[in-house]
Amino acid sequence: MKIAILPGDGIGTEIMAEAVKVLAVLDLKFETETALVGGAAYEAHGHPLPEGTLNLAKAADAVLFGAVGDWKYDKLERQFRPEQAILGLRKHLGLFANFRPAICYEQLTHASSLKPELVAGLDILIIRELTGDIYFGQPRGRRVAIDGHFPGAEEAFDTMRYSKPEIERIAHVAFQAARRRNKKVTSVDKANVLETFQFWKDVVTEVHAQYPDVALEHMYVDNAAMQLVKAPKAFDVVVTGNMFGDILSDEAAMLTGSIGMLPSASLDKSNKGLYEPSHGSAPDIAGKGVANPLATILSAAMMLRYTLNQPEAADRIESAVKAVLSAGLRTGDIWSEGTQRVGTRAMGDAVVAAL
Amino acid sequence: MKIAILPGDGIGTEIMAEAVKVLAVLDLKFETETALVGGAAYEAHGHPLPEGTLNLAKAADAVLFGAVGDWKYDKLERQFRPEQAILGLRKHLGLFANFRPAICYEQLTHASSLKPELVAGLDILIIRELTGDIYFGQPRGRRVAIDGHFPGAEEAFDTMRYSKPEIERIAHVAFQAARRRNKKVTSVDKANVLETFQFWKDVVTEVHAQYPDVALEHMYVDNAAMQLVKAPKAFDVVVTGNMFGDILSDEAAMLTGSIGMLPSASLDKSNKGLYEPSHGSAPDIAGKGVANPLATILSAAMMLRYTLNQPEAADRIESAVKAVLSAGLRTGDIWSEGTQRVGTRAMGDAVVAAL
Ligand SMILES: CC(C)[C@H](C(=O)O)[C@@H](O)C(=O)O
Ligand SMILES: CC(C)[C@H](C(=O)O)[C@@H](O)C(=O)O
Repeated sequence: MKIAILPGDGIGTEIMAEAVKVLAVLDLKFETETALVGGAAYEAHGHPLPEGTLNLAKAADAVLFGAVGDWKYDKLERQFRPEQAILGLRKHLGLFANFRPAICYEQLTHASSLKPELVAGLDILIIRELTGDIYFGQPRGRRVAIDGHFPGAEEAFDTMRYSKPEIERIAHVAFQAARRRNKKVTSVDKANVLETFQFWKDVVTEVHAQYPDVALEHMYVDNAAMQLVKAPKAFDVVVTGNMFGDILSDEAAMLTGSIGMLPSASLDKSNKGLYEPSHGSAPDIAGKGVANPLATILSAAMMLRYTLNQPEAADRIESAVKAVLSAGLRTGDIWSEGTQRVGTRAMGDAVVAAL
Repeated sequence: MKIAILPGDGIGTEIMAEAVKVLAVLDLKFETETALVGGAAYEAHGHPLPEGTLNLAKAADAVLFGAVGDWKYDKLERQFRPEQAILGLRKHLGLFANFRPAICYEQLTHASSLKPELVAGLDILIIRELTGDIYFGQPRGRRVAIDGHFPGAEEAFDTMRYSKPEIERIAHVAFQAARRRNKKVTSVDKANVLETFQFWKDVVTEVHAQYPDVALEHMYVDNAAMQLVKAPKAFDVVVTGNMFGDILSDEAAMLTGSIGMLPSASLDKSNKGLYEPSHGSAPDIAGKGVANPLATILSAAMMLRYTLNQPEAADRIESAVKAVLSAGLRTGDIWSEGTQRVGTRAMGDAVVAAL
């Protein structure tokens, strides 16, 4: 088995070093190979996703990804910006199913913006479609408007679209995930306005006929954004499109107060996957040794569970992380009065020791 | 001056009756004319926005709107569903500028899901573009996919688009609103993925050159959904497109804990407007006399201020609402231990008495 290690930019290299350290002590049988991605790859090779990196990712059984991006690339033409590497990997690897757990860790309940009783024990799984929707729909670009409010004016446009098999496969992923959890799926759409999401709702309903043991509810995206704030524990599995999933999964992650703790998985049709923390590259604290490596370490655990078929090793990592939290160790992002503030490396070392 | 009164469905008629009562005691010079809209209009005339209602709205100086919608219309063809009335009014009246204040009332701070210190004194103004974007872009529909992941499959699609003058005019509205407040605008986009919102960002930046006294920041929509949860008070004026504005304005409204209190205004280029509460038609409590009429009453105040040029009358209504809250009167949605629970009519009467 081969794991592609793509640390990326900002805090990416620091947090990845800790995840690699944790994987190493497990003494499992796999090799790792590291490559540049994002801004770091652009600087070295003139492209955020160089062919060598893409080929490595394709050849590997799983990809462990840090984070990409920095303000300094904001002025680059879009195709050279770091985040194009993420979009390129998703597309070329066919990673259509994004798993974004939003979990509130018992020890961190107070870190949430929400009142503790609303988030204590929170455990939602947001399943976001990741290779379709307005992210990749063609045509897109700029042109002269031929109709609308200002015919003749310059306009920009994008195409939102979903085909039936794209909706079907992500619906199956969601219903199957729900069977392993509490048998409830909320499908989020905007069927009252968009043709794409009326179709989404229709197809999800059709697929649901094969899962009579799972409850399905439909919710408009604006209402979902509200209900997440009002009563997040009312959700269990949420399935939605790429664009709405981008917004709602970040909202849900931030609600937990534990965003520095949240891993994610992006899977293809045979469970090959890319694993990355839910947070970004945090250029403001990069290189200072203070970033929280736990989301990346937990992403490695998710990788062991979903792709590498090592559930016991995944369990061990997750228990070690909980032990470290219970011992009171905290990086700056989750620190509070009465706990012990540690840096990135000390946090990684503590997880290794707990293993 | 003429005000079109469109109560709509669900709690719409009950809350509107209170707003009309409040307007009546102010003894201002205007006439009102009432018409059916939404499901009520569909039942009577076979269309949620009958010609008579649209003509009245066009002829009037301002429209006061209640709420539309009910589960029982869910199975109708989209063009007959109640919410088409809202979309039709926005489009035919050219109501491109939607003002959605998210205010946390001092007396209701505890009603928020967020910790009190995060929302106490919160006062954000979300300005949502309301007649463009993927809401109205053509083409849209169903077809056979000719490319993408599953060529040959059935797909549905929509078009996101913004022309330069559409972005310019809403940017001017936002910068001008910021001048009357704290001189800070956050423009929310998804320029890292969408052509439409790279253009949005470029045009907003260009318009900003005319407002050197106003600070402008750009934020991705996923990050905005997070920052609203993390530190809502960091925002002042937020400007964004129709789709993102739909999601973020509802998220922000719910964060305040005061959604039953929040009015909104949708204005055309000469400040003619439609005014409505931020909440929906709440079919579950319709007819029970328990709905909160304050958002509708405050919408009437907004109407007096923005369209009818009666700022003193608007001030009087707003002060009366605050007095009633301070006296401890609460409808069920904002009730808490130690306050007095009242129904829709008693709440309206209390505002009238306070005037
Ligand atoms: C960086 C960006 C293109 C990306 C997205 O929008 O998908 C990010 O926000 C994410 O959620 O992984
Ligand atoms: C009812 C619906 C079409 C509408 C919208 O999406 O604009 C509503 O959610 C709103 O925000 O006024």
